[in-house]
Formats: sequence, C-alpha cells, structure tokens
Amino acid sequence: MRLSQFHLNTSRETPADAEIVSHQLMLRTGMIRKLAAGIYTWSPLGLRVLRRVEAVVREEMDRAGAIEMLMPSVQPRELWEETGRWEKFGGQLLKIRDRKETEYCYGPTHEEVITDFARNELQSYKQLPVNFYQIQTKFRDEIRPRFGVMRAREFLMKDAYSFHLSPECLERGYQTMHAAYTRIFTRLGLKFRAVKADSGAIGGDASQEFHVLADSGEDAIAFSDASAYAANLEAAEALAPAAPRAAAAEAMREVATPTQKTCEDVAALMGIALARTVKSLALMTPDGFVLALVRGDHTVNEIKLAKAPGLGESRFATEAEIADYLGSEPGFLGPVDPKKPITVVADRTVAAMADFVVGANRAGFHLAGVNWGRDLPEPTHVADIRSVVEGDPSPDGQGTLSIARGIEVGHVFQLGQKYAEAMDCTVLAENGKAQTVWMGCYGIGVSRIVAAAIEQNHDAAGIVWPEPMAPWKVAVCIINPKKDESVAEAAEALYRQLTRAGLDAVLDDRGLRPGPMFADIELIGIPHRIVVSERGLAAGTFEYRARDASESETLDRAALLARLAVA
Amino acid sequence: MRLSQFHLNTSRETPADAEIVSHQLMLRTGMIRKLAAGIYTWSPLGLRVLRRVEAVVREEMDRAGAIEMLMPSVQPRELWEETGRWEKFGGQLLKIRDRKETEYCYGPTHEEVITDFARNELQSYKQLPVNFYQIQTKFRDEIRPRFGVMRAREFLMKDAYSFHLSPECLERGYQTMHAAYTRIFTRLGLKFRAVKADSGAIGGDASQEFHVLADSGEDAIAFSDASAYAANLEAAEALAPAAPRAAAAEAMREVATPTQKTCEDVAALMGIALARTVKSLALMTPDGFVLALVRGDHTVNEIKLAKAPGLGESRFATEAEIADYLGSEPGFLGPVDPKKPITVVADRTVAAMADFVVGANRAGFHLAGVNWGRDLPEPTHVADIRSVVEGDPSPDGQGTLSIARGIEVGHVFQLGQKYAEAMDCTVLAENGKAQTVWMGCYGIGVSRIVAAAIEQNHDAAGIVWPEPMAPWKVAVCIINPKKDESVAEAAEALYRQLTRAGLDAVLDDRGLRPGPMFADIELIGIPHRIVVSERGLAAGTFEYRARDASESETLDRAALLARLAVA
Repeated sequence: MRLSQFHLNTSRETPADAEIVSHQLMLRTGMIRKLAAGIYTWSPLGLRVLRRVEAVVREEMDRAGAIEMLMPSVQPRELWEETGRWEKFGGQLLKIRDRKETEYCYGPTHEEVITDFARNELQSYKQLPVNFYQIQTKFRDEIRPRFGVMRAREFLMKDAYSFHLSPECLERGYQTMHAAYTRIFTRLGLKFRAVKADSGAIGGDASQEFHVLADSGEDAIAFSDASAYAANLEAAEALAPAAPRAAAAEAMREVATPTQKTCEDVAALMGIALARTVKSLALMTPDGFVLALVRGDHTVNEIKLAKAPGLGESRFATEAEIADYLGSEPGFLGPVDPKKPITVVADRTVAAMADFVVGANRAGFHLAGVNWGRDLPEPTHVADIRSVVEGDPSPDGQGTLSIARGIEVGHVFQLGQKYAEAMDCTVLAENGKAQTVWMGCYGIGVSRIVAAAIEQNHDAAGIVWPEPMAPWKVAVCIINPKKDESVAEAAEALYRQLTRAGLDAVLDDRGLRPGPMFADIELIGIPHRIVVSERGLAAGTFEYRARDASESETLDRAALLARLAVA
Repeated sequence: MRLSQFHLNTSRETPADAEIVSHQLMLRTGMIRKLAAGIYTWSPLGLRVLRRVEAVVREEMDRAGAIEMLMPSVQPRELWEETGRWEKFGGQLLKIRDRKETEYCYGPTHEEVITDFARNELQSYKQLPVNFYQIQTKFRDEIRPRFGVMRAREFLMKDAYSFHLSPECLERGYQTMHAAYTRIFTRLGLKFRAVKADSGAIGGDASQEFHVLADSGEDAIAFSDASAYAANLEAAEALAPAAPRAAAAEAMREVATPTQKTCEDVAALMGIALARTVKSLALMTPDGFVLALVRGDHTVNEIKLAKAPGLGESRFATEAEIADYLGSEPGFLGPVDPKKPITVVADRTVAAMADFVVGANRAGFHLAGVNWGRDLPEPTHVADIRSVVEGDPSPDGQGTLSIARGIEVGHVFQLGQKYAEAMDCTVLAENGKAQTVWMGCYGIGVSRIVAAAIEQNHDAAGIVWPEPMAPWKVAVCIINPKKDESVAEAAEALYRQLTRAGLDAVLDDRGLRPGPMFADIELIGIPHRIVVSERGLAAGTFEYRARDASESETLDRAALLARLAVA
C-alpha cells in the first residue's frame, strides 16, 4: 500500500472526551470515528487491524473444527419468548418493530437463533458433536456506553455454539475451544490469562474468561506465581489459613475508642497490626439478623457473600435493626453479647484468629483479646466471603497469588441443557429415543480486542502493535521524494522487494517532512520503520528502527533484510 | 474439507413456499434457512458461496483503488433529517428507538453516514479523489419480502462512495467503477449486461445497472446484437423510423366496428396488420386534455410518457372528460375532429405513419386511411413514449435490439452534489475557497448475486455453479469406504494431492450409497466430481464427471490431473 493512495488522518490533539488511552489513540490515529453514543465507524486504518484479529480468530476456529456460518442480526421476539429472555435480558436488548408492528430485537447474542437452527438441522446423534460459529455485528444497548469500542453498543463478535450428546463430550468440546482461544491470543501477541469465572449454578470449570492484562482493565484477576491458576477476583477461593487457630493468650478487655469507628483507626490508636482487628457487617435476611465478619485488612466480596449459608437474599441492616439486635450503633458493632440471638458468618481467616479486636456493641468502645469459644460461641457458619489479596496461597496449592487487572476479551461457557431444554432441541440417540442436547457457547469480542491490545501496548509516542495485529508490518519512509528522484526510486524498489517477499509493507510517499512522517508512523504503531534518504543511499545504508527500540540503527541492505527475516 | 466434518443437510423435497428456482435450490441444498420474513441464516454451505463472491468483490474494489472501511448498521435520525430522507425514504426504512428513546434506523444504505464521515475527514482538495467502500449488512423493510435472499429484508451489500473535486473527475471515477464491476461479474463467471438505467434528473450516462441475465429476472433489458449497447426498457430509446413518412395513398373513411374496442380486434375485423392501427390514450394534465398515440402493436412506456412535453403530471382522463373533449366513449377514441381543442402527443413511430386506423370518436366506428396534415393537424408534440421491442434499431446506430430478462445485482450512479450540498460536505480547493464535492455511489448486492447466479445456472439435478462461486471446485467421492480400506486411502491421498496443489477440494467420506452421494454433489453444484472405487482402483482409473457434462469419463491419474489443471 502506498500511503498517498490510502486515507490516513491523524491528529496531535488528545480528544477531551476520551478517558482511556486506547480510546484516545484510536481517535488520534483516526482508526475509529464516533457516529453516535457507543456507535463507531471503522476507518480504513482501523479496519485493517480489525481484519487481522478476525483472520486469526477464523483460522483458529477452523483449525479447531468449528464450522462458520452467518446468522441474521435481526431476531424475532417469539424465539426470545421461548427462553424467557425477551423480558429477562433487560434494557440491553434493543427492541425493534417493523412496518407490520411485528417485534424483533437486534441480536445481542445468538443462543436462541442457533438453538432454533440446531433443532431443525440436527436430527441424529450421528451429527454430533458439532460446533457452529460466526463473526458478526451485535448490538447491546448499554446504558452508559464508554471507552470507545471497549464498551460500544454496536460491536463485532465471534460467537460459537457447540452441541453434544453428553456432558463428557461437552467437556471435551469446551477444552478444545479453550485450547483454540489460547492459540488465538498467543498468536495475536497479547499477554493474557484464562481465568476461572464465577459460573453461578453450573460450577466447576464450566466457565472461563480470557483477559488481556492491562493496568486499565476493569476486572481484577488473581493468578498464581507458580502455576497456571488464574481466576476472577469473585471466583478466586481464599483458602483457610494453613496454621490452626492459636490458643488464647490475652484476657478479653474493653478499650476506649471514643472516635475510632474503623478498624484502621482502632488499630492505629492501639498501635497494633490491622490484621489483628475484625470488621463486622450487619445484614438482614428473611431468616433474621446476620453479622458477617472479615479481618480488618480484608475486603468483603459481595458475590461470595451472596453464596454463603443463608445469605442468598440479604441487605444491609438499618440503624434501627442494629440497635434492636446488638444494642449498638454503627462503628462499634461486634459479635460478642448481642441483645438478641444472631447468626454469625465468619470468614475462614477470622475463624482461625485468636486474641482479636472487635466492636463492643457500646458507643466509644471496642473489645480486645477476644477469643472464639471463650468470649463468644464458635461462629454459626465459617465461609469464604472475602476477596483474595496479594500473597494469599494459590487455591491449587502451588505458589502464592498476585493480583493484576484485565480486560475480558473472551468467554468459554458450558451452557449445559438450559437452552436446549427451553427450546426442545433434541436428537435421536443411538437407542432411538429423543435426547436433549448439551450445549457450550464461546465468545470473543473481536472489536474489543483491538482496544485491549492498545491498552496493553502503547507508549508516549502512540501504539506499539504486536506484530500480528499491526496494520502494516513495515513502513518504508522516503525523505524528500521530490528533491531527488533516485531516493524515491530506491524506496519504491525496496518496498516492492519486501512486498514480493510476502511482507505487508507500506510506502510513506506522502512527501511529509521527517518529523511529522515519523510521528505518524510511530503513532499508528508500525513495528518496523525504514528510512530511505539521499545520504543513506550514498553510503549504501538504510536507517532502521523497531517501534519498541529506543534508537535507530544504520544497516546495509543485507543486514536490513536479515533483520526483517526476508530471505 | 472432509464432508463428514462439515454440516451438509440437503433435501429431496421442493419446498412449497419457494416460488423461484434459486429459492427452492437454496433451501434444498440447505444454503439458507428462514428465520423470519425476509430474514435468513446462511448455513456453512451457503456462507462458503457468499464468501467467494465477497472475496472477488473485495479484490476488484481494492485493485480499482477503493479503500475499505466499515460503517455502523445503526444510524442516527439526525443525519437522515439533514437530507430529508427520514421521511422521504418511506416504509422500507426500519426505524429504531433505543432505551433513551433516541431515534435511529437500521441502515438501508449509507449516503448520509459516509457524507458525514467525509465532511469531517476531508479538508483539502489534495485528499481527492477518494473512494471508500464497505461490505456490510443492510436492512430494508420490504413490504412483501420474497424469493429468498433475492428480495430479503436483511442482506449483504457492497457499497462504495467516491468524492471528487469536479464532475469530470467524478466521470473518471465512475468509469473506473464501471470497469471494476465488469471485472467482478466476469470473474464470477456470470452472463451479465451493464445497462443504461433511468437516472431521473441527472441524465446522460450517469447511472448504469448491472444485470445477471436470467429468464426469471424481474427486469426487461434491451440490448444490441451488434454492439455493447444495453439499457433498461425504460431507458432504451426508440428511434424515429429511418424511412420518411409515406405519402397518403388512401382516402379517410369510416369503418363500422360495432364491438371492436381494441386495436387487435379492429385489425382482425379489417384483415390488416396490427401495425397499421394507432392506440389513443386519454390523459388529463394541469394544462388540459392530451391524447397520447402509439402504434397498435406498441406499448406505452409510462416512464417515458412522464418525460414527454407537458405530461410531467398527468392522470388518465375520466369517461366524462373523454365525452367532454372528444364526444366519444372509451374504445373508439381518436385524434380526428375532437369536440374541443386538445393536445396530441404522437410517438415517433406514429408521427411517421400514413393511411392509419384510429377510433372515430363515435361509438361503433373507427377511421381508416387517416393521414397527418390532411385529415388532422400535425401532432402537437412528437416524442419517444413507447417501449422498444425486439427488432427495433439499436439507439447507438449499431444492429438491432433484443429483449432479455435480468436480475439487478449492481448499480453505479453519479450522485453529483445532491448529498454534499444537503450536508455541506466541502473541501478547500486550490484557490483556498470551500468547494462542495461531487459524489458517486456504487452498490453490489452480494447476497443477491448468489441467488441470481443460481437462476442463471441450474438444471434438473440442481445448481451448476460457475467455478469461481462453487463452495468447492472438486469433490472426491469414496464408494464403500468401510468395505475396502485401500479405496478410502486412495481417495484420501488424491484429496490431499489436490488440496496441496491449491485446489479447493472436498472429500465425501460420509459413507453414503453412490446414488444419494452423487445426488448431493450434483445438487450443491460442485463443478468437478471424481469417484474412487474398488474397481477403478484395480484398473488404475478414476471416474470423472464435469457438473455440466452429460456423461462420466474414465481417466487415469495423469489425465485426471491434467483435466483439473493440476501440475
């Protein structure tokens, strides 16, 4: 491609309304242009990158035996009624009425359509297993679209759906997709983690998310320093401490904490470690008052809390309820001597503590030297209700956990029979009887990957594309093309040689001055830059610079070609 | 591809609700499945063909210098208000409200979006000319979707938009696209015609349609047997007869035609050629009563009629108006001796007639031997108001016209400044002043091409794909794969050899009996079929059959590879 024949429209200005760096850089490079809230046009430059991602995804899906097809974007309401999602999906479902007042939606996902397709197409167990996928535009009516294509309303997705005769076969298909996803993100040159996701009622390994690691990621991920273990913060188990509870060493005593209402303030006043204190969270449930306890330096994890015994439907207790059950006011709550019987749910760590500090249920006081079994009964329930922290042991028993931030770009999920049952998707089994199929679904946010890659790979000068995603692998820049024709000719010849060798090269023949030209090439993140100049030509050399290098190098033709791995 | 690993689901039944052969065959082959009215899923088989078309379109657009991008499918109402098309586009525009009650449409076309993109992206004449295109899903809310993907509501389209500084540059860009389209349809192996379309107010060569020729086509096309001339029936000019009007040879006389109200009946009664009679069409216009005349064997063309002098806003005259102006009743109208002054618009052919037959303006009578200038004044206006017929001279002066039927699959159009003016799309010209740009637009119905190709290429056994569109070029069929392993192995080896040679081959390893297997391969239209059997293997031969041949041939390996052009 000759850049003079392309449409490149970069900007030096950082757009005011773009909060994150990928959004800023996608606007500055001109990769995307906003048409409406959460709706973007992909410019020629942006589309080149999007297509690179799409191609890798397609190749690896094909290699994994998935079969590509294409479903419509407009889907009839009736199908969504069958699964109950017409109502349940919520506001993200963009509903449409056609000229005959028939109702449709712009598909945010395709479980209903593929299950309808499958129940008509699949008659016999002999047709299973099968995995259908598509790469297609979806729409989710986000209430607050933001961050450019990172959380857009109209976006490009790869979605795959597999059909199986048994849960064992589903598990194998799921692992095949897991392996394909691993190849996809590896080939794209991204640092990523496959993390165990909270999979609700299905449990086990039935759901994993693929996250591109980036400081700006919306999700926190816990991963082991010694194994492949990685999980969403909600899904990462906090193990019980390995050491048993120590014996009580102190007597329980009241400590005056006149204005100290937080564990931090109490620990500071007492000159003790925050890890010696215990936080109390007062909750009301249909079965009564519950006090949930986590160590002072830990954080309650709401998703884990909701799964703890009796806490499926809880809310924060009111001040009146707290006074009623504990005789206390907020800031001084504790599990010792409540006014009325209460349920105590202790985090595993708290259950293993001795000589700890809690609120005294009396304004202005805390209790220190508190011990289970002596000063208060053993907790009603012991459960994992906190988020893991850096340094926690890895749940798989190997190494300790680190916390990183990630951007979810893929999701593999064992749906089981949920959709197949709701929509009566059966095949005739070997025994001649109708059998409901088992399903998996596997999504990749194709357009989101582009933004996530930028979040992970950029510097002050712009994007630093991983080579497989770059719009072009190498840029050949001409200094003063009009001044000296031989320079332009030499650049042309080099460009043609690289192109013939199968390298995706771009010739910057726009005639810009070196400063703006180099700034553009760096901004749009081309991995390799070659400068052809009069001086270099005289010396038989080219100036070469890798995008991620700090210095240019002067190379002769042979060294240059070797550097670019051109035979 | 191994067919056992693919999803093929054919049917012997002709679906009752499919009226045209392409729709029937696309359902029987399983290429498409209906999801809702005018909304189809493309199965793996169908998508393979669709992608072949898409690839050729993309390659030729790129080769022609157009730059690919991707615009959203959901478009904001405001842009459509700027051009007035939010109301004017009519019921085909699928309007959408999001959760915030903001109005959008599902794009049926992208003039507004691209013009908005261009007015933001294009600042200088130096950026022109430029041609942006996309291949993307569109939606038109057809009131009566039918014929499968031929007239679907959701469909795949390639749309390109070019921007120019002058009408001359637009003309050059238009010709470039015309040439690209010619290459596209040629490469796809389709018989097609580029036809002059009625381009309304713009006129000239500013609009051409590309039609795939097929007997089932909705549009009639006139084309020369001696030149490249081709036009829509509305756009094909009917020339004035080359020979001058003959001198009057008969006297005008009344002929009793008691029940003969049509030219056909009158000619039959009188025993003369239909071409001796003249049909009168009574019209009312804001300027008064008009009688439009065409020869008895010709058909009035309404689009041409509307362009004739004074007939921009006409309607059929009522019986009362006919009685008022002509003193006649319908069936016996004529231009001779009207009761009140009337305007006569004669078709060019009629203006050159002598001794013709018209209604006598008296019930039960016609006039014969009528001559212009003698029996009635020369016509007020002479115009081309009839459709051309087979045998008419070609308007370019070369050869005579034939009439064929076609399916419109492409359209190139010089938009001029219509959208650029409405949306204020300007660039700074060389003189430093803002100048409104000139635009062209160029569409191809990608999904429709698939159906049109089938309409043109099929036989009783199924589809006969032009090679470039076939889902696979060659099928290797195994007879009794389980009975004799060496047959399966030999077929595998041949399949791998063909694949390695770059031939897109499919191995039919499903283990079907020969009858159903061959029927499938013929139905889905694979151009080359090779059968590997025990008997053939023993003789060192393969059974080869081209899809469009009536007989199989027995070939040895070398002859087979030569036939498939494999080195």
